[in-house]
Amino acid sequence: MPRFIDVHHAIDRGLTPEQTAELHQRDLAVQGRHGVRYLKYWYDPTTGKAFCLSEAPSKEAVLAVHEDAHGIVADEIFEVFEGE
Amino acid sequence: MPRFIDVHHAIDRGLTPEQTAELHQRDLAVQGRHGVRYLKYWYDPTTGKAFCLSEAPSKEAVLAVHEDAHGIVADEIFEVFEGE
Repeated sequence: MPRFIDVHHAIDRGLTPEQTAELHQRDLAVQGRHGVRYLKYWYDPTTGKAFCLSEAPSKEAVLAVHEDAHGIVADEIFEVFEGE
Repeated sequence: MPRFIDVHHAIDRGLTPEQTAELHQRDLAVQGRHGVRYLKYWYDPTTGKAFCLSEAPSKEAVLAVHEDAHGIVADEIFEVFEGE
């Protein structure tokens, strides 16, 4: 299944790891409805920037999870391949 | 050690997975000099967007690896915490 990174430019500067985890739990709670599996996320509390990595059938499905979970929609989304 | 995501807005649209892997190998070859460990990267061949995840002592160290390896420096860099 394709992988995606969605980017939030500035969710909320100063959001703590715990608050971010709580938001992410809401994503996990509804992702199944959209056929999406969130894998990881990264958050910079200084700038409010966030990156979410997921496997999903489409970009639209990924965006729908955030919309459905908490309404904090991503600013950009990219279909990516992964390397290491 | 802190984790970072560095972002390239548009490296080179259409770069293949193999070409991207080759560039990344050059990062891995020099990262030790800067105390950096690259963990993963993601690349969108449609837009040229790239994200690199690393562990490093500082933002400057991460940026120095790209500079040293191939001169394709990141446009932005964020110190992040990770969740899943």
